Amino acid sequence: MALQSSKRARDYGLRFGVLPTGPLNMITDVPGVRVGQVTLNEEYHIHTGVTAILPHDGNQFQEKSPAAIYIGNGFGKLVGYTQIEELGTLETPIILTNTLSVPTAADALIDHTLTQPGNEKVRSVNPLVGETNDGFLNDICGRHISKEHVLNAIHQATTGYVEEGNVGAGTGTVCFGFKGGIGTSSRKLPPSLGEFTLGVLVQTNFEGVLRVAGLPVGIELGSYSFKENLDGSCMIIVIIDAPLDARNLKRLAKRAFMGLAQTGGIGSNGSGDYATAVSTAYRISHESSSLFDEVKLLRNDNVSPLFMAAMEATEEAIINSLFAGQTLTGYERHEVHQLPVDKVVELLKKLT
Amino acid sequence: MALQSSKRARDYGLRFGVLPTGPLNMITDVPGVRVGQVTLNEEYHIHTGVTAILPHDGNQFQEKSPAAIYIGNGFGKLVGYTQIEELGTLETPIILTNTLSVPTAADALIDHTLTQPGNEKVRSVNPLVGETNDGFLNDICGRHISKEHVLNAIHQATTGYVEEGNVGAGTGTVCFGFKGGIGTSSRKLPPSLGEFTLGVLVQTNFEGVLRVAGLPVGIELGSYSFKENLDGSCMIIVIIDAPLDARNLKRLAKRAFMGLAQTGGIGSNGSGDYATAVSTAYRISHESSSLFDEVKLLRNDNVSPLFMAAMEATEEAIINSLFAGQTLTGYERHEVHQLPVDKVVELLKKLT
Amino acid sequence: MALQSSKRARDYGLRFGVLPTGPLNMITDVPGVRVGQVTLNEEYHIHTGVTAILPHDGNQFQEKSPAAIYIGNGFGKLVGYTQIEELGTLETPIILTNTLSVPTAADALIDHTLTQPGNEKVRSVNPLVGETNDGFLNDICGRHISKEHVLNAIHQATTGYVEEGNVGAGTGTVCFGFKGGIGTSSRKLPPSLGEFTLGVLVQTNFEGVLRVAGLPVGIELGSYSFKENLDGSCMIIVIIDAPLDARNLKRLAKRAFMGLAQTGGIGSNGSGDYATAVSTAYRISHESSSLFDEVKLLRNDNVSPLFMAAMEATEEAIINSLFAGQTLTGYERHEVHQLPVDKVVELLKKLT
Amino acid sequence: MALQSSKRARDYGLRFGVLPTGPLNMITDVPGVRVGQVTLNEEYHIHTGVTAILPHDGNQFQEKSPAAIYIGNGFGKLVGYTQIEELGTLETPIILTNTLSVPTAADALIDHTLTQPGNEKVRSVNPLVGETNDGFLNDICGRHISKEHVLNAIHQATTGYVEEGNVGAGTGTVCFGFKGGIGTSSRKLPPSLGEFTLGVLVQTNFEGVLRVAGLPVGIELGSYSFKENLDGSCMIIVIIDAPLDARNLKRLAKRAFMGLAQTGGIGSNGSGDYATAVSTAYRISHESSSLFDEVKLLRNDNVSPLFMAAMEATEEAIINSLFAGQTLTGYERHEVHQLPVDKVVELLKKLT
Repeated sequence: MALQSSKRARDYGLRFGVLPTGPLNMITDVPGVRVGQVTLNEEYHIHTGVTAILPHDGNQFQEKSPAAIYIGNGFGKLVGYTQIEELGTLETPIILTNTLSVPTAADALIDHTLTQPGNEKVRSVNPLVGETNDGFLNDICGRHISKEHVLNAIHQATTGYVEEGNVGAGTGTVCFGFKGGIGTSSRKLPPSLGEFTLGVLVQTNFEGVLRVAGLPVGIELGSYSFKENLDGSCMIIVIIDAPLDARNLKRLAKRAFMGLAQTGGIGSNGSGDYATAVSTAYRISHESSSLFDEVKLLRNDNVSPLFMAAMEATEEAIINSLFAGQTLTGYERHEVHQLPVDKVVELLKKLT
Repeated sequence: MALQSSKRARDYGLRFGVLPTGPLNMITDVPGVRVGQVTLNEEYHIHTGVTAILPHDGNQFQEKSPAAIYIGNGFGKLVGYTQIEELGTLETPIILTNTLSVPTAADALIDHTLTQPGNEKVRSVNPLVGETNDGFLNDICGRHISKEHVLNAIHQATTGYVEEGNVGAGTGTVCFGFKGGIGTSSRKLPPSLGEFTLGVLVQTNFEGVLRVAGLPVGIELGSYSFKENLDGSCMIIVIIDAPLDARNLKRLAKRAFMGLAQTGGIGSNGSGDYATAVSTAYRISHESSSLFDEVKLLRNDNVSPLFMAAMEATEEAIINSLFAGQTLTGYERHEVHQLPVDKVVELLKKLT
Repeated sequence: MALQSSKRARDYGLRFGVLPTGPLNMITDVPGVRVGQVTLNEEYHIHTGVTAILPHDGNQFQEKSPAAIYIGNGFGKLVGYTQIEELGTLETPIILTNTLSVPTAADALIDHTLTQPGNEKVRSVNPLVGETNDGFLNDICGRHISKEHVLNAIHQATTGYVEEGNVGAGTGTVCFGFKGGIGTSSRKLPPSLGEFTLGVLVQTNFEGVLRVAGLPVGIELGSYSFKENLDGSCMIIVIIDAPLDARNLKRLAKRAFMGLAQTGGIGSNGSGDYATAVSTAYRISHESSSLFDEVKLLRNDNVSPLFMAAMEATEEAIINSLFAGQTLTGYERHEVHQLPVDKVVELLKKLT
Repeated sequence: MALQSSKRARDYGLRFGVLPTGPLNMITDVPGVRVGQVTLNEEYHIHTGVTAILPHDGNQFQEKSPAAIYIGNGFGKLVGYTQIEELGTLETPIILTNTLSVPTAADALIDHTLTQPGNEKVRSVNPLVGETNDGFLNDICGRHISKEHVLNAIHQATTGYVEEGNVGAGTGTVCFGFKGGIGTSSRKLPPSLGEFTLGVLVQTNFEGVLRVAGLPVGIELGSYSFKENLDGSCMIIVIIDAPLDARNLKRLAKRAFMGLAQTGGIGSNGSGDYATAVSTAYRISHESSSLFDEVKLLRNDNVSPLFMAAMEATEEAIINSLFAGQTLTGYERHEVHQLPVDKVVELLKKLT
């Protein structure tokens, strides 16, 4: 298997917007956020996996996080949307996996929640599971993801470094005709704007006419098509430590989808494009002796820099998934090549 | 177990609006619609089940039905919403069950679809599963519903008579403090308005201040409370043979929820109230050699009588579920009484 | 002109739900809320007007109120929706008038805002104007409402008693085939539920099969039809002193629309049914030196009693508009009769 | 006044995506579409205007066009949204103007509709008026737009060439810190994809970090900021001759907003970003003797190329507005410079 360089897009001098990144340029730059991934590779037919994102290290059901989901294009099987829309809170870890394993992952999240200490009385759980369809490289109908895989991804979740490319829920995905996968990025706002950290993690599996930091890579490589990509999709997870409520989180999630647009994604008819935004700045307890919650919320007129951060970090996370993606031969010997990074770099050099 | 009378609300002289019913006054009055139910009763802890609704007898994935879902209150775990919202079509049977068995039911619908003749190439399915929480009478955490139960409900589905009350997904549900369950009703429009048939099926598990055909039963019986009913919910399925597209089906679904309001339901914070509307008047083929579909659609200015029909039939279906509900002692010996029909009838007699 | 009794529905013993009313049973029971109405009657062709609702006595632009709008049926010309949906705040008084005078009223609200002390720098205003179509009794195409009428309604606004029936924006409206108009009601929650006051004001101009506190008045009087009522509509204003954000205000507004359903309204195709909910519990300043607002919000799990209050008060407000409506002969000598209150009372007596 | 070159972006070799344009590369490439503009320039305080877009040359009220509006960011005063959302049709010409003149324009559209032959019985009209805030260069509080200006824009509307830049509703607008205004573009799909023509017209008045066909112009020129732009906005009108219903038109409109994202727009908190999509392929008659409309609709799985066309044409239309914008000194002697086209071209040359 040809190894993709371990350098990320930014290491080549590419710039995505104007805001600085966090220390790792990863979703885990947001304090407390953990990511766990389980990868299944069995030559040649199984190439799939699970990516778990945990906003905080507490009991997510008892201490819910403010959250919202923006639907870019809803040809997808994400579960958990309507309750988050109604109540504005997330009560489980977020799981990403393949399309046909969504029920398994949802069931595992119920297990996870019911068995967690402190949840003995729980009889109702709203799991959040997103997916893209890796059926070109993976024997998706074999449904090789088990509840154990999902629970392992949750249990292994850690802060710090996040693996990108052919890993977890991105193991078998394809993006702009190249090997996609998991990508991540972050932004750090200056003190005058609140000093917030925003992180993004994506699972890329969609089509369009690729632009890399604006460079017309798709056109130059002649790599794009008009045809519908029935099962293409992109899952975008945005986490921020600014105190936003569900309304402003939904607006933030919409800007993440705008970042996808900057890469040349079109939200094709067959795409399931969902952006989930979560705040770690405060938590909503499941039960309370008070009628009220006291919250300090960022005012509407201060959200624009966060919008810019979400857009930039999503664009970069998507490109990172392509820079990290590695050529893979999978199900039915379908082969998908990695992005020819050298050609992108050539194009970049012309400009600078 | 005290047996509830087999008489339905209408048999006592109650009237729900002004439109005539179909021959059975059931959802199956809409030609081609089939219902299948699997009921689990094991004293005392298991009282749950599955109700399957099939809009037509073809291959639902290959011949999708126009559909839309209206969210009355989204504190619920229904899966399948976002794709139906985006594409306007239903591609699986509709399954109703209990809250924690939703993933199992979704997984069963994937099995059902992948194994159906003609679906050999399918790698992406959007299951539609609704639920209410029967955890007061049923050991819900035991997750006693299996994929086989779900597949059996689909396979047993038939046209004609539909059982109401403690059956299928309504086996363990509670409504207005009384034993709820499955209920159904229908309306038939006169020829001048298109002669359409509309059918409704409900799974009732919610709270409020009960009115029966307007009669203040809840107040008279002193049976209501202000407290939140965390897991209460109502699933409403509306099927019509009028040619409506997704936009007008969503409007129709909203009127079904208005029928719930007429019974005194308030859509409490903890309710998962969803109304799904489906048209059987035409089908959208999964694949086509043409760029276009030719459709004959009911004009906006002719939908009002259908709105009235949806509202009336939903009100009556909910009340039917209460008239059919039977006193049940279940999980942890919780006991829920059936509606005291005699007292309702007394009240009715005063008025007539 | 035959005078309608000055007794309100509740004075005859009718009961709408189970919660107690505020002292006046009017929207102005919510502290600080003011209503102003300008009525135009010129025999026979002009019967229209303006109703202004002011949530507080400060500068509404500088001290915005949390707000949300629920669209029951959007065949209406309300202006101001999208910005309230995006930002969650109301920045002008609310004006109700007739359909074709909406631009005039919006223009007047701009005048009002630009000229108010403290607003010298304002260059962008989002007026909120609702309407129903009084064209059956009023020469609506004559557009007899001027900016002065609108400004007068604002300036005359007072706390305390609110006139109902053929007044203000309800001067020429028709409801369930009878003379509708302005109606109002309120609810007061007990201390354990927060002791909040919720008030409703409606402008009634819609069709359906009338129920009065559940009583089948429409059926008994044989007064209903299946035909579309092209320009029917209902404006519902809900104000509450509980601290809700826009998300929960939208949920509250939806319950107001459920109250309309309890009166037998069906949200016909031609209806413009909008429920606007506003909180007076806190204000969002237009400008601030802080990045944040600190707010104390009612928790999700405490909103159900408010939902019930919104539903009850809306039902009662609509019925109050009918009890106060007076027979009117208007444009082109169209005559609309007032509700035969005696027949309603007869029906009520049977039951009690 | 320094004259901007009359060359459009594409004349310099810039490419926006991969689809060919229509003959004029303007919205009027869609057969039957007409545009009329009225421009007000009075040194130095008045710089504003009106742009009218007419989908067809018939009576728009009697022959409504399928339509939908996508809200990118709703901090805007557009009127007409809710009825188009409910019914899926447009019944007036589309007017663009400045923020505080929206009521005037709406009133003019009522005049226009009521006085048009064939509309004698009309008593209810849903005007569609969009706006951006030109208050930096224009004395917006003077409200210098009259109903006559609006009616003139409608009456002068013609097919063929559309003026861009400082004209009509774009006379006083500012975009990415440069002089914005009106821009337009079109795409023509190949016969295999239906041979449809899609046209876009924009009124640009928003902020972000400018990219021109991907080129990082904003970064290179150091021209961007994090601050909120309170009154920024972008109106996008998309017209297509493909037979789409409101659901798919809304999806199409969303892709137009994605085209805005490709230019570096972020949908800042203070933006009113609305994309309106209209089909000219069929019309919905206001009245009909039939219960039904027969329509031929493009299937979901054929919309992706249209999505790409909407995205590309919107990106190009926005950039065209900047290439045509001319330096202007206006209200309070505020000066806004035109885009330094030579510097953009330099950057482009490096790449090619």
